Amino acid sequence: MANNTSVVLARRPQGNPQPDDFALVTRPLHEPGDGQFLMRNHFVSLDAGFRNWMNEGTGDNVLPAMPLDEPVMGLVMGEVISSHHPDYEVGDWLMARIAWQEYSLSDGGDFIVKIDPDEGYPMNLYLGVLGDTGLSAYFGMLDIGEPKAGETVLVSAAGGAVGSVAGQIAAIQGARTVGIAGGEGKCRRLMEELGYDAAIDHREPLEEQFARACPDGVDVYFDNVGGPLLETVLDHINVGARIALCGAVATYGASQPGPSNLFQLVTKESTMRGFFAHTQVNRYPEARAQLAAWLDAGDLVAPEYLVHGIESVGPAFCDLFAGRNFGKTIVQLV
Amino acid sequence: MANNTSVVLARRPQGNPQPDDFALVTRPLHEPGDGQFLMRNHFVSLDAGFRNWMNEGTGDNVLPAMPLDEPVMGLVMGEVISSHHPDYEVGDWLMARIAWQEYSLSDGGDFIVKIDPDEGYPMNLYLGVLGDTGLSAYFGMLDIGEPKAGETVLVSAAGGAVGSVAGQIAAIQGARTVGIAGGEGKCRRLMEELGYDAAIDHREPLEEQFARACPDGVDVYFDNVGGPLLETVLDHINVGARIALCGAVATYGASQPGPSNLFQLVTKESTMRGFFAHTQVNRYPEARAQLAAWLDAGDLVAPEYLVHGIESVGPAFCDLFAGRNFGKTIVQLV
Repeated sequence: MANNTSVVLARRPQGNPQPDDFALVTRPLHEPGDGQFLMRNHFVSLDAGFRNWMNEGTGDNVLPAMPLDEPVMGLVMGEVISSHHPDYEVGDWLMARIAWQEYSLSDGGDFIVKIDPDEGYPMNLYLGVLGDTGLSAYFGMLDIGEPKAGETVLVSAAGGAVGSVAGQIAAIQGARTVGIAGGEGKCRRLMEELGYDAAIDHREPLEEQFARACPDGVDVYFDNVGGPLLETVLDHINVGARIALCGAVATYGASQPGPSNLFQLVTKESTMRGFFAHTQVNRYPEARAQLAAWLDAGDLVAPEYLVHGIESVGPAFCDLFAGRNFGKTIVQLV
Repeated sequence: MANNTSVVLARRPQGNPQPDDFALVTRPLHEPGDGQFLMRNHFVSLDAGFRNWMNEGTGDNVLPAMPLDEPVMGLVMGEVISSHHPDYEVGDWLMARIAWQEYSLSDGGDFIVKIDPDEGYPMNLYLGVLGDTGLSAYFGMLDIGEPKAGETVLVSAAGGAVGSVAGQIAAIQGARTVGIAGGEGKCRRLMEELGYDAAIDHREPLEEQFARACPDGVDVYFDNVGGPLLETVLDHINVGARIALCGAVATYGASQPGPSNLFQLVTKESTMRGFFAHTQVNRYPEARAQLAAWLDAGDLVAPEYLVHGIESVGPAFCDLFAGRNFGKTIVQLV
């Protein structure tokens, strides 16, 4: 049978991941045993949140800490090409929390969602706007943010996979949306391509930009990045503000201190809530149908940063942290 | 007419307040003008939360920053003794967010709640268990904490005015309650007098104590203190945990860094919410009736740290931060 190339964790990233933190390893591919199936992976979804489990000892209820020299865990989409498992048959399209590799052998114990190809959307959309990132934006913005018409909704990493969808959902609810991104070019794209009403460049001094972009304060903050920016935002929240901490927030686990002004949550009677889309898996069909309807109606656009080949997976993951992507980052393998 | 002695802010506290941060000033008392009334203050309620507005420039939607050499703002109870105001008449008992002084002249624009003396409870209870601190415990624990039978509920400053009530309310809901306090003696009192199931002494190493006192993790944290303890607690929360940041949290406004592990809110899909009882003023009667019923039934005890005289107000406020109080701190003036 064929060989299987995987991306392994060659060393633990220090700060932002670097290409040499990853390495390619090719091993012979085995046929599925009893109760197993084999998946040919077509797309790898790259999500900054997985950075958290690359640290030593960061295992938790979501994932174990990733071991060195083993394939990196991520979100992958592929087609079942061989199966001895009662629940999965050849031709099934699956989205799975599984390793970065060309083929995956599974006993079905991984986090797996079946995709219906008859819906007619390009498969890669199920990793982006119709997948975990779109669903993260959907649940985080609607369940936690609860944006109302006329409110100011601020989104960090606003051009990223989750942020780009989150901002548009808030706009559909009638909110005024403000996006935060790095660099003048990206800030312009936020407004021109994603419809944000204003943009804040986090590489420039923030106070004057907040005064201009959020003159009425911040009612909802959809936080994809954590770090010192959260402290600045807390200084600008309104009474009753809602802060959604998205599962993609990678830097909260780092050694930097947290915001020293959490007292703002008290005086502004505000809420900060963390979430993962994964735990809402029973609501995926309903949420996906709504996102698809918005796509069909042209209310939602889904920019993509698409690269090709298993050798591009590690470098493209690093691009996320260097801010090179705009929209959802996907590696096409087939 | 008589003189009026007030406690003024002589200098801005650095860290914990010291007695010399306050001074007594005696000025002639004026009769109320048109649209004003005069209140003879019987009790001053001391609440750590007011420390926040003693810092320079900390004014917000709740209170302006307190000016130097002016009477300190706090929560006071007294009786109307003279009135030219249509809504207040002689003999009315009021609880008001007003200055620390023997007499207060008001135009009714302050935060004021009328007390019904026919309810038959000692007036001082309306500043404690039947007042803002009891109501803070009530709304914070029930609305945000939502403790369920068998859950582990952790309370900081567990012997304080709010904490002592919060822990008992959680126990009434069937939760297992764990209190945090400073010193072995206080920890013993938490269990013996307030019915906590376990206690943690924050002056001793925490990790071993958490393992013993919270073997199943923390479902609810009612936080009265903020600071580094919050970071430790975040490391022990369960999935779906609720953290109530009480208005009494004085130290959040300080210059110390916040928790570096807010990512825990994401991986544990947990909520942190700040609140003030003040904004629930329309629910005070219902909440007070429930607290009174628990008192009557013997399900709730209300320890007090009672001192006497306007000259004791400043030192007793400092006692709060030195941890000398157990239960509600009240200064009786008359």
